[in-house]
Amino acid sequence: MLTSKQKKFLNSIFNPKEIIWEKASLFAYGVDSSSLHGEPEVVVLPSKVDQIQKLLFFAQNEGIHIVPRGRGTGRAGACVPKKGIVVSLLKLNHIIEIRKNDFVVIVEPGVITYNLQQELKKYNLFYPPDPASVKFSTIGGNVATNAGGMQALKYGVTGDYVLGLEVVLADGTLLNLKNFCHKNVCGLNLAKLFVGSEGTLGIISKIYLKVLPLPNYSVSILFGFKSLDKAISNILNLFKEGFLPCALEIIDKNCLNAISKVDSLPWEKDLNIQTVLIVKFDGTENSVKEDINRVLSLFSADVSIVGKTEEEQEKIWELRRKISPAAYRLKPAKLSEDFTVPRGKIGEFLRAGERLSNQYDLPVLTFGHVGDGNIHTNIMYDPEKIEDRKKADKIHRLLLEKTLELEGTITGEHGIGLLKKKYIGLQLDSNTLQIMNAIKCTLDPNNILNPGKAF
Amino acid sequence: MLTSKQKKFLNSIFNPKEIIWEKASLFAYGVDSSSLHGEPEVVVLPSKVDQIQKLLFFAQNEGIHIVPRGRGTGRAGACVPKKGIVVSLLKLNHIIEIRKNDFVVIVEPGVITYNLQQELKKYNLFYPPDPASVKFSTIGGNVATNAGGMQALKYGVTGDYVLGLEVVLADGTLLNLKNFCHKNVCGLNLAKLFVGSEGTLGIISKIYLKVLPLPNYSVSILFGFKSLDKAISNILNLFKEGFLPCALEIIDKNCLNAISKVDSLPWEKDLNIQTVLIVKFDGTENSVKEDINRVLSLFSADVSIVGKTEEEQEKIWELRRKISPAAYRLKPAKLSEDFTVPRGKIGEFLRAGERLSNQYDLPVLTFGHVGDGNIHTNIMYDPEKIEDRKKADKIHRLLLEKTLELEGTITGEHGIGLLKKKYIGLQLDSNTLQIMNAIKCTLDPNNILNPGKAF
Repeated sequence: MLTSKQKKFLNSIFNPKEIIWEKASLFAYGVDSSSLHGEPEVVVLPSKVDQIQKLLFFAQNEGIHIVPRGRGTGRAGACVPKKGIVVSLLKLNHIIEIRKNDFVVIVEPGVITYNLQQELKKYNLFYPPDPASVKFSTIGGNVATNAGGMQALKYGVTGDYVLGLEVVLADGTLLNLKNFCHKNVCGLNLAKLFVGSEGTLGIISKIYLKVLPLPNYSVSILFGFKSLDKAISNILNLFKEGFLPCALEIIDKNCLNAISKVDSLPWEKDLNIQTVLIVKFDGTENSVKEDINRVLSLFSADVSIVGKTEEEQEKIWELRRKISPAAYRLKPAKLSEDFTVPRGKIGEFLRAGERLSNQYDLPVLTFGHVGDGNIHTNIMYDPEKIEDRKKADKIHRLLLEKTLELEGTITGEHGIGLLKKKYIGLQLDSNTLQIMNAIKCTLDPNNILNPGKAF
Repeated sequence: MLTSKQKKFLNSIFNPKEIIWEKASLFAYGVDSSSLHGEPEVVVLPSKVDQIQKLLFFAQNEGIHIVPRGRGTGRAGACVPKKGIVVSLLKLNHIIEIRKNDFVVIVEPGVITYNLQQELKKYNLFYPPDPASVKFSTIGGNVATNAGGMQALKYGVTGDYVLGLEVVLADGTLLNLKNFCHKNVCGLNLAKLFVGSEGTLGIISKIYLKVLPLPNYSVSILFGFKSLDKAISNILNLFKEGFLPCALEIIDKNCLNAISKVDSLPWEKDLNIQTVLIVKFDGTENSVKEDINRVLSLFSADVSIVGKTEEEQEKIWELRRKISPAAYRLKPAKLSEDFTVPRGKIGEFLRAGERLSNQYDLPVLTFGHVGDGNIHTNIMYDPEKIEDRKKADKIHRLLLEKTLELEGTITGEHGIGLLKKKYIGLQLDSNTLQIMNAIKCTLDPNNILNPGKAF
């Protein structure tokens, strides 16, 4: 519990609009998009970087835990506090500068990623990373978790766009890792170390991003297949032909079943479609048209729907977005995972999901970024039924083991946070964890920054 | 000096073909492509990773300096030893596995990058980074320096392709950062910390690289302009139109003057071409043709030569490769730099080079990766003339200041090594350097790994 002296200090550096003490208001800052929750003692919303510096200098001396957060859209509990002070970065929400000819943008961490993308469009510029939360999550949160997304297949993940950072270290020191150059090898690449560090090494206060020219044309195509196997062999054929689209998403039959309970599917029912792939291409109109012809000649699908206009494409992607809410029509609770396997192993992983779903008679929904092996798994169960809970846990454990057997990773884009901490030792050996902790200890010797998370 | 006990130990873990004691043979391991040289006491060439582990465990206890090296093509003295043991990685030179469907390749550090690229071609795969040294340098050296190259404009630098590493730490611990997934956020991204660390944090013993589908078509076009200003305004126009080719190289009039002393230039002399740009596009045949039409409509050049076949392209790029050797026709010595400025600032930097060349009456050659602001500068001088030396130093200093004024970096792709250590404090502040050194100290507490380099 904070002492009255500590409370007084906080009130001295944050004005009443920048600090939340009321218990009822604190609740919202203790959760994220995992099922975890905690309770901060207080939330501060700095509007200037030097407030963060003063806060951390004080917290380090007093041994107070600090948990930074953006919009709380993470799925691993990385920003869920155990206690201490939550630092919301939402008031640091300015696009500082768009340097069009440098292909560089400088932003504060609280900017919503989608808003940045929309602003960049006016300059004919493009920031590609598109996590599912893109319309709600902040760029700071995206950097702290190295967020992925659909278009990672062509464009890579958040970290691939981070040129430089400004970071407040645990003792309040301002680390200025500014960089406006797309090539720069001056000293260690510290900025990349903070990417994906989930708030454990410092608080990101400014971000220097690389941006690209905006592609002026895109097309999305939905392909339906009568079996999972057929879809898989089509995907592997695409890889074999050395053809990687901008995005390649899968929707399995359990997902389709869930969606069909809330909406009609856009093909004749007697086609008996069991698996859907959505492919997106972008670039110039001619290059995209060439891509379409190529994929149409490579794929042998049982149904295909081409979306050219923005509206038509939107309709195709709507199907993908319906999965998560529709899933609850099958069972009232989900065990959600982002196990990821090497690209060539997706068949084995998807088949394991289907097999376990049948074997244990629980709906296992597999969908997502199949082009990168980054497959999302929702194991649906009824928490009231002890048998369901046991079966869900068993399936979860077997899929985890399958992931490791296939040399995959326990998290492709959600991160470790609190949720997966118990599994990290199954993937990383003790030497690796020791070095991660040694670096943490160097940067945060009193362990005040988001302690107990990430590694 | 090594004691007889230490020498005995080395002879016990390395067989006679893996250890070099003869002074005459040691010389070659004391230089790189900078003007610097040093003398190791001994060179070892491990053929197994456990030899490196034993060596480092021993060296750490004995306080012996260890300097790892590949083919010594670096230009900043990063692998030039002051004393101690040089560890050549050239016997660890196997491509361990090409996982075609995973788009992953696992290699030992001593593999020549070009050889890897050629082998990958057989699988229709592509490893894009292409430092000028690509036919001679090793992939381990490329990773240790985060090597760039021409095609970085479209494809990024070496670090963008490093998925995972195996590293021997200073105390001989094997750090296994293996990763076969294109998306992976399990714990801190330690692999990226070792990228570009110039041998100061560990010895890289295995590399997991992301690879891409091989583009099946490319075209290179040479554009000649009657003035530097005209070339610059054409480049900036390209950026403004949001058009980034695969490569965009510049060759200035001093370079052309040097080349003309060894060879004829491929255009009519009375065209009076003062600056050349070489543009490369790759992709499918149709997309490349579209790119060509677009650049031809955007550029207003005084001469243009399109190279479609491999031979025609080769002929165009030969001009680029002639610069370095031809430069010595102007003056017997060069001060070579890779100052880099933000993409939109290239005009100011190039004009500064031209102005200083005129003002001090010394040939300043500017050329290279203008698309990324990564411009190579060769200040030519006669080391016998004290006036020349003074002028060269003055120009160098002024270009350094101009780089920093334009918010550039003192090294875009060569690294700091020994050569630029004296300048690093002009770019990075003391907080940043302190954190780099703290991380170094955590990983190498006795400072045995390539001490005194990089940061």
